[in-house]
Amino acid sequence: MPGIAGETVGIIAGSGAFPLEIASSLTRAGTPIFIVGLRGFAERGIKAYPHMMADMLDPHAILGALKRLGIGKIILAGGVSRPGPMALLSIYTFFRHREELRKIVTGGDDRILRGVIRLFEEADFSVLGVDEAAPDLLAPLGPIGRFQPDASLATDINLGLDCLATMGRFDIGQGVVVAGTRILAIEGPEGTDAMLRRVADMQKNRRVSFDKPQAILIKASKPGQDRRVDLPAIGPRTLQLAKQAGLIGIAVATQDVILVERDRLLALADQEGLFVTGVRVS
Amino acid sequence: MPGIAGETVGIIAGSGAFPLEIASSLTRAGTPIFIVGLRGFAERGIKAYPHMMADMLDPHAILGALKRLGIGKIILAGGVSRPGPMALLSIYTFFRHREELRKIVTGGDDRILRGVIRLFEEADFSVLGVDEAAPDLLAPLGPIGRFQPDASLATDINLGLDCLATMGRFDIGQGVVVAGTRILAIEGPEGTDAMLRRVADMQKNRRVSFDKPQAILIKASKPGQDRRVDLPAIGPRTLQLAKQAGLIGIAVATQDVILVERDRLLALADQEGLFVTGVRVS
Repeated sequence: MPGIAGETVGIIAGSGAFPLEIASSLTRAGTPIFIVGLRGFAERGIKAYPHMMADMLDPHAILGALKRLGIGKIILAGGVSRPGPMALLSIYTFFRHREELRKIVTGGDDRILRGVIRLFEEADFSVLGVDEAAPDLLAPLGPIGRFQPDASLATDINLGLDCLATMGRFDIGQGVVVAGTRILAIEGPEGTDAMLRRVADMQKNRRVSFDKPQAILIKASKPGQDRRVDLPAIGPRTLQLAKQAGLIGIAVATQDVILVERDRLLALADQEGLFVTGVRVS
Repeated sequence: MPGIAGETVGIIAGSGAFPLEIASSLTRAGTPIFIVGLRGFAERGIKAYPHMMADMLDPHAILGALKRLGIGKIILAGGVSRPGPMALLSIYTFFRHREELRKIVTGGDDRILRGVIRLFEEADFSVLGVDEAAPDLLAPLGPIGRFQPDASLATDINLGLDCLATMGRFDIGQGVVVAGTRILAIEGPEGTDAMLRRVADMQKNRRVSFDKPQAILIKASKPGQDRRVDLPAIGPRTLQLAKQAGLIGIAVATQDVILVERDRLLALADQEGLFVTGVRVS
């Protein structure tokens, strides 16, 4: 982690447990932190750390406060709802070209986040990725819980990884469900949870049945993805929905997918009998 | 239509209006027909034609009756639910290898249909595609209703066609929704209707918004697809769901996608202000 040690890192915290995990990981590593909690999104837990609350639609306030604290490195963590078109106009002044804003507003979520990163960079902040700031939160190689995938699943895992790599150029797909060499679902903007519910529905509606060919979830980042933006993640809820969808496990690209609430995730996986494993992308 | 004229064509009729449209198209062309209605699926309308009812799980009865009538050419039309694993065992005797049946049962719907086609072919029937038996039911080139797509949508249409062609090798995707150069959804075993409902949900959940970049549905068959199997189709319900999902039109690969209930489809498109257009796949 060159350049992080000793220097305070600002965490811009959206919803979920993940910002707190980043905070905890950095603290364990001896790095001082300061959290900017986005109002309406950040969890109460951030109050255990040096913090302030701010409105996501008021980047002046966020940038100003960080500058005054002498913070030069930040990391974006946690979810926010996509702001509506009117709300986005309030941050319009940060973008030099109306055309640029239009592209961001109408583009994928990645484009919005890339726009936000650019905004910070233009204000001379350096924006870190999870892989730089808290690499211990990323999936290691090999089985992570008690169970491991049968060797025969390698074909399905590779098919899933191949599909995700192929779809990458369409800026869609960080997740895919495969059963018996058949692709059942490709994740779009609806997200992993909704995709898993779709797979559960397919079985209810008899669109598919996989008593025997067992279904698995495969996750990996898009090829060439800016690793400071929206790295794929799995957590306890992913595991629960995977179980409900009849899946037998989850394979994630190693060093590429965030394990959110790892302890709860693995306890749940062990309890439900699902494997969670880190795999190498060839 | 080489070899069809004069000879009676058997229509194996599942659910929906499509078997009746095939019947009507063949009758218009002067080709005698005989319909085998699958019990629990075929619509009552088949009774207007020479017909019999049969159980889809009793291929002996179906093949025997067609043979006795001297029918050598058949076409499969309309939907059936995927039979459960136990039900499939009852047609096991038609397959020589248990392994072969397993592949069919666990594979995509295409594989099931290909298995059924093989079954008919091994009994010396010739199985026709819609393109041979009723080409007038396929989408022509250019706008089909009153509205036509803005020239600026060519980029999105080509992106959609490119995505479908790319996904073809994964045996998934006959449909895709695109808005402003962004892929919103790729169709899997859930089907077009469920995919359109998903896009409607994405907007409700603020996952995407496309006030300005307008969304369209693009449909095409998979590259190398057996054209006797499950050609993509759109009909009035597709149009209605597209409208509900906020789409502004539907582009289909010409001579490649079936227009089900064309008159109702186009009346509805004209009424709702959506375009339906046939496009060339490069």
